[in-house]
Amino acid sequence: MPNPTAAMLVIGDEILSGRTRDANMHYLAGELTKHGVDLKEVRVVSDDAPAIVAAVRILSESYDHVFTSGGIGPTHDDITADCIAEAFGAEIDVRADARAILEEHYARTGAELNDARLRMARIPEGAELIDNPVSRAPGFSLRNVHVMAGVPAVFQAMVATVLATLTGGQPLLSQTLRVDRGEGEIAATLSALAEKYGDLSIGCYPFQKDGAFGANVVVRGTDGMRIDAAVTELARELGL
Amino acid sequence: MPNPTAAMLVIGDEILSGRTRDANMHYLAGELTKHGVDLKEVRVVSDDAPAIVAAVRILSESYDHVFTSGGIGPTHDDITADCIAEAFGAEIDVRADARAILEEHYARTGAELNDARLRMARIPEGAELIDNPVSRAPGFSLRNVHVMAGVPAVFQAMVATVLATLTGGQPLLSQTLRVDRGEGEIAATLSALAEKYGDLSIGCYPFQKDGAFGANVVVRGTDGMRIDAAVTELARELGL
Repeated sequence: MPNPTAAMLVIGDEILSGRTRDANMHYLAGELTKHGVDLKEVRVVSDDAPAIVAAVRILSESYDHVFTSGGIGPTHDDITADCIAEAFGAEIDVRADARAILEEHYARTGAELNDARLRMARIPEGAELIDNPVSRAPGFSLRNVHVMAGVPAVFQAMVATVLATLTGGQPLLSQTLRVDRGEGEIAATLSALAEKYGDLSIGCYPFQKDGAFGANVVVRGTDGMRIDAAVTELARELGL
Repeated sequence: MPNPTAAMLVIGDEILSGRTRDANMHYLAGELTKHGVDLKEVRVVSDDAPAIVAAVRILSESYDHVFTSGGIGPTHDDITADCIAEAFGAEIDVRADARAILEEHYARTGAELNDARLRMARIPEGAELIDNPVSRAPGFSLRNVHVMAGVPAVFQAMVATVLATLTGGQPLLSQTLRVDRGEGEIAATLSALAEKYGDLSIGCYPFQKDGAFGANVVVRGTDGMRIDAAVTELARELGL
């Protein structure tokens, strides 16, 4: 059975303006690979409702899972929850279960649960909450869309919670062979190898170090023995 | 006149598998902001021809400019140039001008211009070459799509070349006000400010430091006096 597929939707003007460097994409990519879920596409859109709604719809239809990051805080530019509801035609309001989490939290910290903070309890009907062990305000899953915070520590905790509930496929394995020759020297060999091992993915990533060219050849797949065979064959053909 | 819009398309399995952390998105976002071009969307897709072709078409139709990174090297997984040609129904083959650049380069370095390396001279008909001062193999622009290498040093050099030829809009200016209060404390004030200054974008980015909550409020726009006014008003309302 092929692995489940996934897409990520990053929501935030701050990424597109270059103010903030996104950290969540790389993290999620690594976690999904370990869990045997194939990340097929990432989109980054701004805090713009029509853009978010359109992206959620198309990604939700195209892939088994969608993971979003960003836009679920208390301020006016945090519109993700309402956009997810709109994308699926779901009702959305302050929900009792989410409100209870915030009430308990703010009672403990002594801060006021004002209208702005209550926004973080706006959860679409039918969604399941995702626990936030860091700052309490929950994420949620609606259908196949998992809505998480953009703050990296919170995002990472929520990813761990969601992945524990998903049925993954076979983890993607990989081996890397470092070749101290330019990409152009080994391209023909790699091409033939890729044709022979059609079930594996063979990537070539050039680097330059101390003025010399080299490349890391990465062989990926779910069958460790096939990967071994391909890497062994490659090393032999390159005389390594 | 509104600023020109742009999208970025990052091509590469290595990003989606978590093996490599993309560095080009953050760089391009910052450069475009400085040049008054609004980056509206980023997509990351794998080394998969139908996915690349579809993304190029939709992004090219939707935005003034499209910048791609990755997939223009000599190996079998470098399929970007052929996909761009396919997206626009353009012919593609080894082109004399690109070939001349490679011949000169390899003659000088003593390496062989073999079939694999010649792939890097495959340029769609009608495209203009983008100079590569780092490793010579050129990028190209076809219609409103600028095709550049994924290696950060080369990508950055190519971005500089392309941006010099574009007519930008007004650079996006911004001011940041650091507020040592939780986001939820200031959300109502920000919301009223955002409504009053509809021509500005007001974002709120929370942080946690030494156990205390704070937020950076970023006011963005093209009119420096308006930004000054909004930030002054915000500081006064928050008693800063």
